[in-house]
Amino acid sequence: MNSISELVSMPDVQGAYDRRAIALDQVGIKRLRYPIAIRARDGTVVSTVAYFSMSIALASDRKGAHMSRFIQALESSSRVFDPEAFATFASEMVQRLEADAGQVEVTFPYFRRKRAPVSGIESLMDYEVSLVARVRASAVALSTKIVVPVTSLCPCSRDISEYGAHNQRSHITLTVEGALLPTIDTLINVAESSASSELYAVLKRTDEKFVTERAYDNPRFVEDLIRELAIRMDADTSIDRYAIEVENFESIHNHSAFASVARTREPR
Amino acid sequence: MNSISELVSMPDVQGAYDRRAIALDQVGIKRLRYPIAIRARDGTVVSTVAYFSMSIALASDRKGAHMSRFIQALESSSRVFDPEAFATFASEMVQRLEADAGQVEVTFPYFRRKRAPVSGIESLMDYEVSLVARVRASAVALSTKIVVPVTSLCPCSRDISEYGAHNQRSHITLTVEGALLPTIDTLINVAESSASSELYAVLKRTDEKFVTERAYDNPRFVEDLIRELAIRMDADTSIDRYAIEVENFESIHNHSAFASVARTREPR
Amino acid sequence: MNSISELVSMPDVQGAYDRRAIALDQVGIKRLRYPIAIRARDGTVVSTVAYFSMSIALASDRKGAHMSRFIQALESSSRVFDPEAFATFASEMVQRLEADAGQVEVTFPYFRRKRAPVSGIESLMDYEVSLVARVRASAVALSTKIVVPVTSLCPCSRDISEYGAHNQRSHITLTVEGALLPTIDTLINVAESSASSELYAVLKRTDEKFVTERAYDNPRFVEDLIRELAIRMDADTSIDRYAIEVENFESIHNHSAFASVARTREPR
Amino acid sequence: MNSISELVSMPDVQGAYDRRAIALDQVGIKRLRYPIAIRARDGTVVSTVAYFSMSIALASDRKGAHMSRFIQALESSSRVFDPEAFATFASEMVQRLEADAGQVEVTFPYFRRKRAPVSGIESLMDYEVSLVARVRASAVALSTKIVVPVTSLCPCSRDISEYGAHNQRSHITLTVEGALLPTIDTLINVAESSASSELYAVLKRTDEKFVTERAYDNPRFVEDLIRELAIRMDADTSIDRYAIEVENFESIHNHSAFASVARTREPR
Repeated sequence: MNSISELVSMPDVQGAYDRRAIALDQVGIKRLRYPIAIRARDGTVVSTVAYFSMSIALASDRKGAHMSRFIQALESSSRVFDPEAFATFASEMVQRLEADAGQVEVTFPYFRRKRAPVSGIESLMDYEVSLVARVRASAVALSTKIVVPVTSLCPCSRDISEYGAHNQRSHITLTVEGALLPTIDTLINVAESSASSELYAVLKRTDEKFVTERAYDNPRFVEDLIRELAIRMDADTSIDRYAIEVENFESIHNHSAFASVARTREPR
Repeated sequence: MNSISELVSMPDVQGAYDRRAIALDQVGIKRLRYPIAIRARDGTVVSTVAYFSMSIALASDRKGAHMSRFIQALESSSRVFDPEAFATFASEMVQRLEADAGQVEVTFPYFRRKRAPVSGIESLMDYEVSLVARVRASAVALSTKIVVPVTSLCPCSRDISEYGAHNQRSHITLTVEGALLPTIDTLINVAESSASSELYAVLKRTDEKFVTERAYDNPRFVEDLIRELAIRMDADTSIDRYAIEVENFESIHNHSAFASVARTREPR
Repeated sequence: MNSISELVSMPDVQGAYDRRAIALDQVGIKRLRYPIAIRARDGTVVSTVAYFSMSIALASDRKGAHMSRFIQALESSSRVFDPEAFATFASEMVQRLEADAGQVEVTFPYFRRKRAPVSGIESLMDYEVSLVARVRASAVALSTKIVVPVTSLCPCSRDISEYGAHNQRSHITLTVEGALLPTIDTLINVAESSASSELYAVLKRTDEKFVTERAYDNPRFVEDLIRELAIRMDADTSIDRYAIEVENFESIHNHSAFASVARTREPR
Repeated sequence: MNSISELVSMPDVQGAYDRRAIALDQVGIKRLRYPIAIRARDGTVVSTVAYFSMSIALASDRKGAHMSRFIQALESSSRVFDPEAFATFASEMVQRLEADAGQVEVTFPYFRRKRAPVSGIESLMDYEVSLVARVRASAVALSTKIVVPVTSLCPCSRDISEYGAHNQRSHITLTVEGALLPTIDTLINVAESSASSELYAVLKRTDEKFVTERAYDNPRFVEDLIRELAIRMDADTSIDRYAIEVENFESIHNHSAFASVARTREPR
């Protein structure tokens, strides 16, 4: 269907000169779903399915990016990522696209095995995790974002009521940047311990009693939850910048309560 | 731009004969957003924004439907709907499309003013409501679907714990069919009274104490909630068929508990 | 924390007698995310991440289901599924919950390697697949649902325009039931070949020319697309029942065009 | 139910002193759905349904925000907004919550009547619009965000193919900040004119021919579309800052192409 001459003569539309002189921050692809694996610090490799957003900064004189090369970069990689491998992948992608800067964001469900607090029965909990690698002038900055579902129990409802207290599922979204980031598991642990209770897939009756009472013993406004976590982030000097948002899917309202805070560490 | 001769000569591709002899159940448009108004039985008219799905049954020998006519039908209508006006609109749409059968589904947020249970402070609660009109052989069958957010409080958690009980937001989805359907408000009332507590946008502290204790006094499994509502639906002889689904966004898990039941009344 | 006497004395709230005499169609859990693997007919095993909905039919005299057992059933299984293993899993789950009937639905992204049509460059395409097993009186009925994204090009736009034709991404949702279902790959093949063109993750310029011209050479209304596929389903006697919906995310409108058809084969 | 003494004695948990010394950027509510009306510059008032996010900055020594006051602020307002009324509402909300800073974001579908380009038939197009008011030290900064769906037609596909060109629906998301912002309609006009074609709800055959050929005559990469719009934003000196993202829901892929740019005007 395509002769060699035709192939040779096809115009490189994207590679053309652009006279509008407007540089673009990001040009690329998003919502690309691909299977990947995550390698933990202990060497364990876990399979998951990710959404990728991959982009380059486009110079003001270039008409466009060669979009197919983003996926070819992914195909050429091992698709097994730890922070180092992910940073290398981002750098190579930027080179392949002949750009000076670029960004890869990969978002995936991350599972970890948990033991129910009393019965010890095991099951998996799922968390949404994103890794972002920003490449500028051959340096790569990494950040990690996790969404941790927890229980929050309202201190006001508890204090003013004869019995009971409203509680609900909440989402803690924690983003951290820095040269030596904590592991995903460490970040999840810190987030879960800031809440009224953590969640589990399997709870038997003895466990349900335990988590019900633990939540009642640890009431937390959305403001408390975010402050408890902020204190922990402030204390970790490996973190250069963090942002936290907590959202409570209120059980007594049809809207959410939320709080957010972002802090950048002063350079020493 | 288009001469009359050009207009006249444009082929009516959709109106052509189709030799494949396959009748289609529904052909039409969906995800069309349009502003409408709902007229209550007391004459009050409330503005809202709806998503429409509009379709006809396509005869086996017709190549296609004239899709633009669906929206022209909507443009020609008053877009102020009560059950009668909605049924008339569906009939006229089927005629305009030169079909024997068709269906309109309109989904919109419905608001009602509520007084907080102790302080009496007023605010609006939102509910997702769908009306469906099915036209067959010039008869129109109507159904109403409502999604009512409520509080559910777990009886097991309450019974086995020294104090507290996990609770959460739940969604009751109730669909009813029949010749003389209850009003949207009546259906919401029945659904809300089947739960551990109803929800409000504004609750002051005295109200929060009230709803916290009310939920604790009315524990409901997802199975209880659906059965309480089913009893009420069974008792209403104006309803020919109903379907209920209840989903609890569990505050101690990252998944939902759910239950469903559908019943058709035996013809008398 | 819990003495044995406490464990023994904890009331089995869910196991209690229910006097309301209302049987429920489904009681269970949904939106549970778990990693699984799919075994193809050639033995290949592919890792993915699934959402589970698991339920039993609840007898009218039983207060509730023991929700934690659903996940324990999943934990006890291999979580590697082919149709046979999936049917066995559903049966065992119903037994473990001490029910007469039940249902498992598992939805996951399914990937397959594709070669671009001219350059031959390989990449993965993702499809949303659901398997459903319905257990009734120890028999298990299976169904498969796939969502296949394709290109549709409008025949009317092509015929009436001097040049060009509007086209867009479309979703074909195909559900099939039967004793010996076609494989996921076979179903995808049939769906893709009913469209104006199939999709690919990577297309180089020679491929882009090819798919652009192929779509123009194969214009399809939403009605054509669904009829082409229905003809193929009618011809496959292993299929007892099928349902198809096609939705075009119209490039010239902000709403979708859609068509649907469902057919049950007459028993021989 | 509550005696006056009980009311008086209820602890003000949110108003208490917080010893953790962590100020929070935002504390408030989100996903609150409420009916509102938008007043255009010509005085026309249009009803719609909005989602609100309302927050204050929380001082480091205050335990929490009084969440119910956000909705009471909304209830006390006219809920008819133009930029001035919206800024006033945000200021009053911050005062009511006894804070120094705060933010209101309201997102709603915005409709405008369009005439099909040849037949002149009228219908409504919907756009997602957000208004944000940021209150700091009694000054209010406003921004407007619009999501405009359009058609994009690929220049590369057109140039390399004998006939046809792939095209698709795209979303232009444009955010502008400044003292005297352009109207919503002006922003939509500029965004639509940067694309290969604008969209309509109703198109008759003569119109469909027109928009098909117009798109073919105006091919635009995602990079072209964003640059055309950036040029227009650069030229409007009333705009202090803008951010644009364009996403193409590619008709030949199952992922999106996208581009983004943000620019802040140098102070004169």
